Amino acid sequence: MDTKKIFKQKFPFWEMLTEYEQNCIVESTLCNNYEKGDLVHGGRTVCTGILYVIKGKLRGYVLSEDGRDMTLNKLMEDSMCIMSGACIIDDLNRNFYIEATENAQILVIDVKYIKKLSEKYNEVKIFFLEIAKDKYQNAFNLMQSMMFIPLEKRLLNKLLEERERQHSDVLSLTHGDIAKDIGSAREVVSRSLNTLQDKNIISLSRGKIGIKNIKELKKLI
Amino acid sequence: MDTKKIFKQKFPFWEMLTEYEQNCIVESTLCNNYEKGDLVHGGRTVCTGILYVIKGKLRGYVLSEDGRDMTLNKLMEDSMCIMSGACIIDDLNRNFYIEATENAQILVIDVKYIKKLSEKYNEVKIFFLEIAKDKYQNAFNLMQSMMFIPLEKRLLNKLLEERERQHSDVLSLTHGDIAKDIGSAREVVSRSLNTLQDKNIISLSRGKIGIKNIKELKKLI
Repeated sequence: MDTKKIFKQKFPFWEMLTEYEQNCIVESTLCNNYEKGDLVHGGRTVCTGILYVIKGKLRGYVLSEDGRDMTLNKLMEDSMCIMSGACIIDDLNRNFYIEATENAQILVIDVKYIKKLSEKYNEVKIFFLEIAKDKYQNAFNLMQSMMFIPLEKRLLNKLLEERERQHSDVLSLTHGDIAKDIGSAREVVSRSLNTLQDKNIISLSRGKIGIKNIKELKKLI
Repeated sequence: MDTKKIFKQKFPFWEMLTEYEQNCIVESTLCNNYEKGDLVHGGRTVCTGILYVIKGKLRGYVLSEDGRDMTLNKLMEDSMCIMSGACIIDDLNRNFYIEATENAQILVIDVKYIKKLSEKYNEVKIFFLEIAKDKYQNAFNLMQSMMFIPLEKRLLNKLLEERERQHSDVLSLTHGDIAKDIGSAREVVSRSLNTLQDKNIISLSRGKIGIKNIKELKKLI
């Protein structure tokens, strides 16, 4: 795997750096493997580094003191996460965790050196500030919808989204996954899904949700 | 009032601009007066402009469809708000409102020209990106505490904060104001306050909350 090639593609400021600076970044970057379920960032870790997903999938989430879990973002192949490299933006969210939801291969970019570069090059600073701003903005918007949009509506939207994403009326989706994505508890989600099943709008089976009446479903939103 | 002097103090990039550019900003800036209760930004307004508070106080809040109101930030004299100048950061939160909580005099800086400058000067871009990042980060952290910290605890923290801020054990504070600040409903706040009064920890009177037993109050957090 050619780390340099990835950075060249992903960092708009790459060509601006000297060869020495480029090498410093490459040399301080680790390539780690994680198994499904592994914690990639969070808990005691202050700053893991900037993550770049080569293979697999990650999930970023916040965790409350009493263990409630809410998905903030999902990281697919070929995407980058800087919230795990919190110290680059002088910030730290101790409730923020990242786990591998599939076996994953990940580049972990050490941020100490990048931080130094961001003081030298405005372009480096702008690149990371823009990502950070977007991440927080999305997280804020998500939280806002959690607080202000009724659970029922969030659940219906989630079903529509998954239908779009999976290109199917039979969704592979557990109640627990839905709960995390819409910021609720599994029990509450199951109750709502059962109500929809009683109304003949969906059908439930192990790990699957079938959409039987899309017209009625859309009407409820 | 010398607008130029304010900008010179507040904008770290000011000296970098040409005199012509400085004049363009000054000339496109309005000085508006608002009365207590006036809506300064929000609703149909897409982009009010960047606000600078010369006199008075403002409150930024989000409003849900069913009218729930949550304070995101308070703007005091000599502070700046760029969320009202949303278009500078290519963003728009249609649920975001700003109202005057006291009679206020405010500079409204047109952002069209500033946006153009941010394409020319990296320093201008960095200045606004940093503010935007911080604002969203704070809003996200606040939302997170709303979702994850129990109401009772938020209420007690709010009382402690106000005690600190007002330097007094007798707080000038309405139940409605507390509700907005901790993201709850007035009725719920009143019920919790009554429980605290029953326990002899606080005493309630019109527009005032007296802290009678600070030791016990702190124990509850």
